[in-house]
Amino acid sequence: MLPLTWLPTAEFDRVRDGIADPHRRCRAFATMSRINTLYMIAKAGSGHLGSSFSAADVVSWLLLEEMEDDDVYFSSKGHDAPGLYAALIGLGRLEEDLVHRLRRLGGLPGHPDVRTPHMPFNTGSLGMGISKAKGLVLGNRMTGRRQRVFVLLGDGELQEGQNYEALAGAVHAGMGELTVVVDHNKIQSDTWVRDVSDLGDLAARFAGFGWGVLRCDGNDPAALDTALRERRKCLDRPVVIIADTVKGAGCARFAATSMAEGEWRYRFHSGAPAPQDYAAAHAELTASADALLAGAGLAPLALAPAPDRPLPPVPVPVPVTLPPVYGQALTELAARDRRVVAMDADLVLDTGLIPFREAHPDRFVECGIAEQDMVSMAGGLAARGLVPFVHSFSCFLHSRPNEQIYNNASEGRKVVYVGSLAGVLPAAPGHSHQAVRDVSAIGAVPDLVVLEPANPAQTRAAVDYCATVKDSVYLRLVSAPCPAEVLDLPAGPLVTGRGEVVRAGGRTVAIGAGPIVLAQLLAAAPALDLTVVNLPWLNRIDPAWLAELVVGAESVVVVDNHYTRGAQADLVARALLEAGLPRLPVFLGIGLTELPVCGAPHETLDFHGLSARRLVDTIAARSPQTSNA
Amino acid sequence: MLPLTWLPTAEFDRVRDGIADPHRRCRAFATMSRINTLYMIAKAGSGHLGSSFSAADVVSWLLLEEMEDDDVYFSSKGHDAPGLYAALIGLGRLEEDLVHRLRRLGGLPGHPDVRTPHMPFNTGSLGMGISKAKGLVLGNRMTGRRQRVFVLLGDGELQEGQNYEALAGAVHAGMGELTVVVDHNKIQSDTWVRDVSDLGDLAARFAGFGWGVLRCDGNDPAALDTALRERRKCLDRPVVIIADTVKGAGCARFAATSMAEGEWRYRFHSGAPAPQDYAAAHAELTASADALLAGAGLAPLALAPAPDRPLPPVPVPVPVTLPPVYGQALTELAARDRRVVAMDADLVLDTGLIPFREAHPDRFVECGIAEQDMVSMAGGLAARGLVPFVHSFSCFLHSRPNEQIYNNASEGRKVVYVGSLAGVLPAAPGHSHQAVRDVSAIGAVPDLVVLEPANPAQTRAAVDYCATVKDSVYLRLVSAPCPAEVLDLPAGPLVTGRGEVVRAGGRTVAIGAGPIVLAQLLAAAPALDLTVVNLPWLNRIDPAWLAELVVGAESVVVVDNHYTRGAQADLVARALLEAGLPRLPVFLGIGLTELPVCGAPHETLDFHGLSARRLVDTIAARSPQTSNA
Repeated sequence: MLPLTWLPTAEFDRVRDGIADPHRRCRAFATMSRINTLYMIAKAGSGHLGSSFSAADVVSWLLLEEMEDDDVYFSSKGHDAPGLYAALIGLGRLEEDLVHRLRRLGGLPGHPDVRTPHMPFNTGSLGMGISKAKGLVLGNRMTGRRQRVFVLLGDGELQEGQNYEALAGAVHAGMGELTVVVDHNKIQSDTWVRDVSDLGDLAARFAGFGWGVLRCDGNDPAALDTALRERRKCLDRPVVIIADTVKGAGCARFAATSMAEGEWRYRFHSGAPAPQDYAAAHAELTASADALLAGAGLAPLALAPAPDRPLPPVPVPVPVTLPPVYGQALTELAARDRRVVAMDADLVLDTGLIPFREAHPDRFVECGIAEQDMVSMAGGLAARGLVPFVHSFSCFLHSRPNEQIYNNASEGRKVVYVGSLAGVLPAAPGHSHQAVRDVSAIGAVPDLVVLEPANPAQTRAAVDYCATVKDSVYLRLVSAPCPAEVLDLPAGPLVTGRGEVVRAGGRTVAIGAGPIVLAQLLAAAPALDLTVVNLPWLNRIDPAWLAELVVGAESVVVVDNHYTRGAQADLVARALLEAGLPRLPVFLGIGLTELPVCGAPHETLDFHGLSARRLVDTIAARSPQTSNA
Repeated sequence: MLPLTWLPTAEFDRVRDGIADPHRRCRAFATMSRINTLYMIAKAGSGHLGSSFSAADVVSWLLLEEMEDDDVYFSSKGHDAPGLYAALIGLGRLEEDLVHRLRRLGGLPGHPDVRTPHMPFNTGSLGMGISKAKGLVLGNRMTGRRQRVFVLLGDGELQEGQNYEALAGAVHAGMGELTVVVDHNKIQSDTWVRDVSDLGDLAARFAGFGWGVLRCDGNDPAALDTALRERRKCLDRPVVIIADTVKGAGCARFAATSMAEGEWRYRFHSGAPAPQDYAAAHAELTASADALLAGAGLAPLALAPAPDRPLPPVPVPVPVTLPPVYGQALTELAARDRRVVAMDADLVLDTGLIPFREAHPDRFVECGIAEQDMVSMAGGLAARGLVPFVHSFSCFLHSRPNEQIYNNASEGRKVVYVGSLAGVLPAAPGHSHQAVRDVSAIGAVPDLVVLEPANPAQTRAAVDYCATVKDSVYLRLVSAPCPAEVLDLPAGPLVTGRGEVVRAGGRTVAIGAGPIVLAQLLAAAPALDLTVVNLPWLNRIDPAWLAELVVGAESVVVVDNHYTRGAQADLVARALLEAGLPRLPVFLGIGLTELPVCGAPHETLDFHGLSARRLVDTIAARSPQTSNA
């Protein structure tokens, strides 16, 4: 059993005070930040190790040496938030106690959020950083303030088009205040950038937009020092510093340079390290730090034990999740149907597509982090009679290429959009990754059906539905583990607009879709004798089916894993009213009413009133006396 | 009184047969296409002259000489559709009769649509073309087809980020099939590209992404010929041909080279030419063509008269529209409130911002056609305590930066989004420019109020509301002329979620927002004795106000200038159901149920069931016997 240990802020103070040479001091500080980053992610059970480590030296140098009081730094990619938090805790700018609360309610969100001190922007949705920085620079100019703005970008992030919208205007406005550092670690979430969508000559690319370009070893404080000195010499225009880094830099265990020949997938982009990886990395990092300390005549690090439970000694059993089921079903479908093409935006693992890529490499298109391009390309494939299945996380897929989805629909061509990581869970990554607005944002697109399956069986049925229906489909796929309550629910035949009673009960009819909502409703059902209905359709409803369902119902409750506006509650409410029923049940719609919080699953559902316990309270409080019976 | 004349397809045949030299033939054909383009736009009363003319030589050369049977050509910018239609009519590939039906129901849409022959894609939403072409190339490879794909891009269009997402992948996949031609006429909708967001070294920009780059005079067939021959020599990668053109090329009247010293706005980007401009251009073009014909020993052009009414001799009186009223109000607000900043995406004229730019140049930010960058920059300005008002056409503003709007909201910062050209009218530009999905697409964004004013007075009140309310606002601004019925409606105090009875009537309560819907409802009201309510809020409703409004109502009708899903009908329906009323009225929601058509205003409203006449029929058909009273 491994005990987790971490470094108090006082240890950082001691080391900063004790090392005179700025480059050595930075090295020690960055190594110590990595130790706390490792601790935070291991304790949280998830988080982005690889980019926190690759960027640690850049972040440390900027915070320790380069930045003056009023300067601003933020990370556009945002995945490296744990590393930044660790550095800020090391500097005493964030409360030390937060080191224990990464990805928990009231703690440090998985991606930066403005409600955390020293986070000027919400990032994690890629490609927005330069634009935000430009807004800051313009705002400063308008309000007579002068400050330098440093933005860290990922290299995979450079596949997003917004970056290039932003570059031109910065030159146009002569933004010498703005410095972009590219954490050029050459690996995006799944694998090598060069294999996804090669950046080519990155310096030429920036220079082509008129930016000043510098380049250096981004894991070497001395090189960063030189580059930043150089940058200060040309203050009439924006400059990018291409910082060549190693993903997972700082210890061999995580460094991309340790990847075996032929190994395509980098294993430490996100997720918690396995116990043996934690132990090895921790030992390496501590030894490195102690060596640097010893060189300055300082005593070794004094690590503190985690305040509560140690790391679980064995991995938890792999839960049932829908993306692998989906991916397998799509792979099988493609074997039967030559028209099926899968398109991916750098999330081949998370969207369950590895089997597809292996089985049908000729019909797998890796598009990189370029969702608009992917969706419009899908339109081109559809124009050739193919049936593209387009994949990304829901949070990005419904919003970044929103106009492109509508444009495809306007051509009357069929495209299947598959958004995984849908809904409020997992809540650990924070609201940039919680898709709770997707149904509303694309639900009105003509000839596009929004479908959310409840469990593996219904996911398989949904793939067949996508292949055979005439309309386009947005398949809303929850990635959080399927609760036991829903695993054996019948898949039922998928008839557009019709649901199925999955628990017979009393005169309160509770409707929902997907594993999270249905599990909570089923758990809540006994207390209120709910009749629970699985209605997997989020923008289509069959009025006749609904009219029959609510015969004799005293009240109808619709629960959305989504903002309460624009999803199933609106759909059912309007259909009830339009049905011309002789007697209407009391209606209650429940869903998110505010920005989703970051936290553990139970914390999050409880906070937003979506847990079984809170659903019982809310439904019970809606007194049947208000019925218009 | 000017008679309009046009050239039948037979005239094109005669000229093509009669000129042997391909370069001269192309010149004559392009000039004749310009004559028909001018005719079509004059007859339609609107259309894009400038880019149709700048691209005419490229289009003519490609269609006449370069393309082989299976090759594909399309324009990504799509504004040049009239020019392409004219060329296809000249070639006999589109029915000759369509020359009279630009921008009319059942005719040729203002922007390309796949329902017109030879239009492979719907374009006009900028920046999607390269991606679509890539999809086609991939689809061809997967289906064993080989064809060259030529895409025309505007240079202003190059400000859109999606282009740069697309560039990288094309090189990665070695797309020698793909040739992009940039119609580099140096002027975007309002003014010079260099003044909006300078492209810098365009060749370096493309080369920075690994593309082959060629450059030529795009109004010279011989130069185009040479460039395309050169292109055929390197078929292992995608190539861009930067075609240097003149906006309005082909006659001095429209040519940007004729702009006076210091004149900033190019006058012929869109809209119909004034009679004197039409006459001068027509004379010039005819003389040019006849000279080319004479050189080949051909008789002069035989022009045909327009089949019906001639061009009106005097300009129609300028109707009342909301954007200028809005722009004036914002300008006055900014004089009182130093925090107000206006941001524009290359639509300074159409969004009413010229007075603002003149009065407050230090707080006017021209962002170019780069909506994502603009919206994220607004987040940066808001972070500095400013109140950015962000402007574009609704069709683009709600969808292209959809994720960026949500991200700003997630930071809890206030931004005002002003989308003009909202709703189904004007319908002449076609569905890429008809914003009928905007309310649904952003209505669920937290802390964002969607507000649609009905007339000038309410627009002025709305500007004050935007400035004082704590929430962000999406101001939905109809640009079509305000019908007389709404001009004198009371503005009323804007209380969030509450509307106002604007015509007292019987027990059928008809609710709507904005000038188009309210005018039709008021026109329909006498026939059915409707009580008409102006409810300018599209995602907020006050339940107490609604409950009081519907006391005694037999039925409630909500009419949306939007798809019937996701807008005011859903809002009112759910609120009615949740109100727990003792007796519910019959409910009827009316809005678009399919993709909006292109056409004249009356044709379009009638087609979609939104005209007064059709509203009367639909409401009357909803029998009161179905009431649950």
